[in-house]
Amino acid sequence: MGPIPPHFSAEDGMLLIGGCGAASLVDEAGDTPLFVYDMAIVEAQVRALREAMPDALSIHYAMKANPYPPLLARMAGLVDGFDVASGGELALALEAGMDAAHISFAGPGKRDDELTAAIRNGATLNLESEGEARRALAIGDRLGIRPKLAVRVNPDFDLKGSGMRMGGGAKPFGIDADRAAALARTVMGAGADWRGWHIFAGSQALDRQAIIDMQAATLILAARLSEEAGAVPPLVNLGGGFGLPYFPGDQRLDIRPVGAALDNALEARADILRDSAFAIELGRWLVGEAGVYLTRVVDVKQSMGETFVVVDGGLHHQLAASGNFGTVVRRNYPIAVANRFGAEPNPEAVTVVGCLCTPIDRLGDKVALPPVQEGDLIAVFLAGAYGASASPAAFLGHPCAGQLLIG
Amino acid sequence: MGPIPPHFSAEDGMLLIGGCGAASLVDEAGDTPLFVYDMAIVEAQVRALREAMPDALSIHYAMKANPYPPLLARMAGLVDGFDVASGGELALALEAGMDAAHISFAGPGKRDDELTAAIRNGATLNLESEGEARRALAIGDRLGIRPKLAVRVNPDFDLKGSGMRMGGGAKPFGIDADRAAALARTVMGAGADWRGWHIFAGSQALDRQAIIDMQAATLILAARLSEEAGAVPPLVNLGGGFGLPYFPGDQRLDIRPVGAALDNALEARADILRDSAFAIELGRWLVGEAGVYLTRVVDVKQSMGETFVVVDGGLHHQLAASGNFGTVVRRNYPIAVANRFGAEPNPEAVTVVGCLCTPIDRLGDKVALPPVQEGDLIAVFLAGAYGASASPAAFLGHPCAGQLLIG
Repeated sequence: MGPIPPHFSAEDGMLLIGGCGAASLVDEAGDTPLFVYDMAIVEAQVRALREAMPDALSIHYAMKANPYPPLLARMAGLVDGFDVASGGELALALEAGMDAAHISFAGPGKRDDELTAAIRNGATLNLESEGEARRALAIGDRLGIRPKLAVRVNPDFDLKGSGMRMGGGAKPFGIDADRAAALARTVMGAGADWRGWHIFAGSQALDRQAIIDMQAATLILAARLSEEAGAVPPLVNLGGGFGLPYFPGDQRLDIRPVGAALDNALEARADILRDSAFAIELGRWLVGEAGVYLTRVVDVKQSMGETFVVVDGGLHHQLAASGNFGTVVRRNYPIAVANRFGAEPNPEAVTVVGCLCTPIDRLGDKVALPPVQEGDLIAVFLAGAYGASASPAAFLGHPCAGQLLIG
Repeated sequence: MGPIPPHFSAEDGMLLIGGCGAASLVDEAGDTPLFVYDMAIVEAQVRALREAMPDALSIHYAMKANPYPPLLARMAGLVDGFDVASGGELALALEAGMDAAHISFAGPGKRDDELTAAIRNGATLNLESEGEARRALAIGDRLGIRPKLAVRVNPDFDLKGSGMRMGGGAKPFGIDADRAAALARTVMGAGADWRGWHIFAGSQALDRQAIIDMQAATLILAARLSEEAGAVPPLVNLGGGFGLPYFPGDQRLDIRPVGAALDNALEARADILRDSAFAIELGRWLVGEAGVYLTRVVDVKQSMGETFVVVDGGLHHQLAASGNFGTVVRRNYPIAVANRFGAEPNPEAVTVVGCLCTPIDRLGDKVALPPVQEGDLIAVFLAGAYGASASPAAFLGHPCAGQLLIG
């Protein structure tokens, strides 16, 4: 399995999350399965990011990673803006107290009702196509509101080694770089409030140099497009891409050299970008390690010489950890026995399965764990991003997992 | 893409579902995205199954495939029993009007509250381990109710070519065949109402001979275990395994020879099974083809020479069709333009993506479709099983899909 994030320790063998024992947190919440989010870890990530990045860089939270309302409310005070991906997320962002002036909305299939809600509230739409621009301008006219429109660019490069590539080829996201300036001119010509460029080349990269190169290429592309459009972009959103180590061999990303390189690149930026603001948007990197999924062992059984640990949670809460969410080869998320944290593993590996009656419900395939028995608590790490909200909660009719924000 | 199921035709170019135009169904439901389930197709499947299978064979519905309450209420009058996989499903089965005497509950991680609900209501528990048997017996004692307990067997063979293997190796499901008889004796010795064997070797197989062989092997195993246990099993649940054609090259399963072979095998069954009842449990095969997912085109866009059709639905409603649910290599479900059904496809293939801001949200990868424009309706077939309830509905904050039962 991959490395357990460095924020966790134990007291008398019990995993501590934000200084509280895992079992007490379950008692507080009332039951397993339970997601615990430690806000102190999120705050530390934001702090580290602000220290590493250039002062002028705004930090946006891509709330698709974790839209749990109490967490959003705290995030609204920590970051400089939210990126939303639907009308539903826009509503949650506003409820969390984020000013619409700092909300941008990207997504390839925005319906008219979603465009309307964004324009009415004064959020920025990151336009994904000429057709969407036409619809947004028409809605702005109809409402008598000058829409805030940025152009999302499908860049002509990708983020090397990223878990999800979002550039460097035919893509459903954004407008190909060679048509982006024309669209910006159309938008400005129609009297809209053009907000600049959104350039997102990929996500979940651990290779520092790849991120440095991607950010440099993004600045060069933004400058070129601005020259072509003949306008200074108010904001250049440089996308995200910072990855977390999930799997064996994954190396932790050191963001300090990334920030130093970006500082240099911004210093050296083209004149047309001199008065622009810059932002990065991160989701997973901010919240992923702050979450732990706690699930109780219901059964420990033997089958043909193998040991299966059956828990009361599963892929209905943590689809990504089961390997069924955008991964080709299933690998184990870091996992531990929370009430025997740090104990010596058994020589014999065990397989941790969820309670669903389907063979794809595996949380740990042949993992080295200390002895496990009924009633033990299993902790699956990296559950802060793309967990509860990104899993098929209704599948097989089990209860939803609880969620608890601490710290 | 795979074959469109044979139940669908068109009138004036509009896809008909149960004799109604797709666009009218959307009007009736109020909006897209929408799952439409045609009960007439389900009834035809049940009828074909009863005609093909031996008269004495009971037909159980594995409701995990589609637990939509109006559908369940109709199923309760069509089949002989329900198989449930959680306490939540048990509650839905009872609400649908299924008699608890015809409900069995299988699942590797049943919690004590679920065992209690099953025993209290008189449903049969398919025991997955010695530990679960111990817990069920203790709960029966505590409640003063004689629990109905069957033993789920991990068979020493698998279903060849099945989409999901559930036998023939170390498995979290059931008890290894070499320990099953001992557990049956324990259960009977403790005074429980032993209900027999549950032997489920795999699912989603299209190879007729593989199913015939699996059913024959299941009967032989049931006889051997019964001899070892020294008791006549009241019921032998032969599992399921009947597959549907989803993908290119998939051949439709002809169930008539399967039924004929099972008839012969039952005739020739061992004496100890002479007074036993037999059941098969099917989920996907009964309801899969009855469902169509209808989603509206929000945008048609070009990127680097490729055409992307962006719809208002996506993997948050139809995860399996996106290829992110237990599949290694993504393949296209059958898909069509509902309002141009049967029209000549364009020479240039298009990619149909959902509205989610993630590259894994694809419903059709380079598929041949007739010309598509904004406002068109896209139909994704085989949406009756493992669709709405098996998808991450909350992901990215879009509305849930509607569901409509017709016929």
